[in-house]
This record gives sequence, C-alpha cells and structure tokens, in this order.
Amino acid sequence: MLKQQINVLGFAGSLRKDSFNRALLREAINLSPEEMKITDFDLTEIPMFNEDVEKAEDPDIVTTFKDAIREADALLIVTPEYNNAIPGVLKNALDWASRGGKEAPLLKKPIAIMGGTPGRAGTAQAQAQLRQTLITTRSLVMVEPQVLISEVHRKFDEQGHLTDEKTGQYIQRLLNGLEDWIKHFNK
Amino acid sequence: MLKQQINVLGFAGSLRKDSFNRALLREAINLSPEEMKITDFDLTEIPMFNEDVEKAEDPDIVTTFKDAIREADALLIVTPEYNNAIPGVLKNALDWASRGGKEAPLLKKPIAIMGGTPGRAGTAQAQAQLRQTLITTRSLVMVEPQVLISEVHRKFDEQGHLTDEKTGQYIQRLLNGLEDWIKHFNK
Repeated sequence: MLKQQINVLGFAGSLRKDSFNRALLREAINLSPEEMKITDFDLTEIPMFNEDVEKAEDPDIVTTFKDAIREADALLIVTPEYNNAIPGVLKNALDWASRGGKEAPLLKKPIAIMGGTPGRAGTAQAQAQLRQTLITTRSLVMVEPQVLISEVHRKFDEQGHLTDEKTGQYIQRLLNGLEDWIKHFNK
Repeated sequence: MLKQQINVLGFAGSLRKDSFNRALLREAINLSPEEMKITDFDLTEIPMFNEDVEKAEDPDIVTTFKDAIREADALLIVTPEYNNAIPGVLKNALDWASRGGKEAPLLKKPIAIMGGTPGRAGTAQAQAQLRQTLITTRSLVMVEPQVLISEVHRKFDEQGHLTDEKTGQYIQRLLNGLEDWIKHFNK
C-alpha cells in the first residue's frame, strides 16, 4: 500500500541569501522522510501588512502565500532570532496569514518550528514568541521535539552544506515527529 | 531662562491611515509639554530587513530613519498588538535601527512606549516584547508610567479626535515622565 504524500510548506524568517536558517530549511528538504515533500516559500516579496491595502485587495504575492499555506498539510517555520525576538520579516508574513476569520490560513494548521543562531541560545526566545503568536491564530504547533541549533555557523561548510551529523539528526527527528503530529488531527 | 527644546521622534506600528495607534500618536503631538516637540515618522516605506541589502548600502529611507533616531533626544513608540505580539511592521523597523554596532541608532536612546487595542489588555504583550527587544539594543526604555489603552476604539470620535479625558491624561503623564526620564541620562 502506497503511503499518502504529505505536503509541507517551509519558509525561513531571514531574507539573506546565505542565511543559516535558509540553509537549515534546505537541509530539511534534503532530509525529509520519503513520503514528505517540503516546498520552500521565499518571503522576500511579501509587503508590509497594511489593513487599508488588505481591505482593497490582498497583493498577489500575499494571495499566493495564503493559498500555499491553505493547501499544505503542515508548515515548517525556520526562524532566526533578531534582537531577542522573531524577525520583523517573519512576523509580518504571519500577520498577513493570520487574517481571514474562519478562512484564515493559519487556523488549525499543524506547524513545526526550528531555528539557529550563532550564539548559544539557538532562537529560544524567538521560538517562544512564535508559539505565543501561533496560539492566537489557533494553529496546531507541534510540542516536541524542539530544535534549537546553537553556534549554527559552525554546523555548515563554506559551501553551505551541513557538516554536523547531530544537527541532521535533530532535523530528521523533527520531521518524523511532524509526520506523527499531523496524524493526530487527521483521524 | 529659556528651557531647551526636547526633540522626540514618534512612530506607530500600524500603517492603516485611520489606525487608533496613529491617532494616539497624533494626540501625543497635540498634548506634548511646551518644551517638547514630537515629530511623526511614517514607517510605510521602510522595506523588509535584508542583510544582503544592508551590506551593499542602506536604502535611503532607512538612512533617513536611522539618522532621525540618532538626532532625536528620545523616541515615542506607539504599538498596536497583532497576534499577541509586536506587529511585523514595527519589529522590522527596529531590526534596521538596531544595526550599526557602536553607531546603532537605538543604542542608549531614551524611549517611551504606549499602545492601544480594541480589547481589554491594551497591548500588554506587545509592550512586553518591545521591552524585551529593546534590552538587546541597550536602549533606555522608560520604566513607568505604563500606558496601555484598552477598548481604544471607544476613546475617539468618528473624526479621529480623542474624546476620553483619562486617555489624554495618561498620555500627558507619559510625556511628562519622558521629560524627567531624559534628564537622568543628561547630567
């Protein structure tokens, strides 16, 4: 019996091309379980949230983003930490995606989160804020495992390939966990 | 003896034209003490933070914003609360302003914060996050009074004028407090 494919939409909260968090997302795509397909959504073109703009009409890229979330079985959010907190870039994308009442894309969406920092705390505060926000959106954020990659710059080679075996294992554990997590809500 | 003018840069975390938080900022401008001048900086054109862009050169509007912060004696940040948190728009502006090492505009800058929500909590969580972020930037955030305006939509008339006397008093108290707060660091 063929297993059904799980479609996961992934996005990273940094726009920098060589961002370590974008690299973590790429590794997640490489390491995903056989039946899981992770698609990378680039947040670069998402404009600033403005309720006046939304009232007229969502910009095309926002519609594309919101539809991609709706169509996905789950999200994988990869967050850097800027100033003890979620980057504005990522929060802004979530502000758009939180909108729409009963049709809001984030509503009841299963979500796994991970992130990395050059420092030791590995996005602990950014992830805590992310969970706080995703309570309001009534999203189904996976409880564990938590993946907080400290000293993330030491985990990749100069070409941006993961060289740290443990980091790879953490990511795989997260994705396997997500597979199980989704099942809880698809009975 | 003439008192020296205090220049305060104010900005609100909502881009909506009729935003209640922008209205609170306008009221602060109206109610400011004689020797204080508050200037409103509109965050609409601030682009998403991107370290690659910054590395090439700050966009003009970002340079203008950072210089305006540097030149101000203090900041007045007026924050709405989106999804239990700082709006992405506001956090993104602070992410830009946090940069520059010893020349970072937010470094040691005295800051007063306030905000309003249609609900009861009056931006309690957004303000807590703001304080958390402004610790990293080593800004001098005023401790008290705190100004959290609940049911903010009931405090203005249809033309956007403040009708609630107490809200006006809270804002005045905040601005008087800011005047004293600045003095602690200008001895």
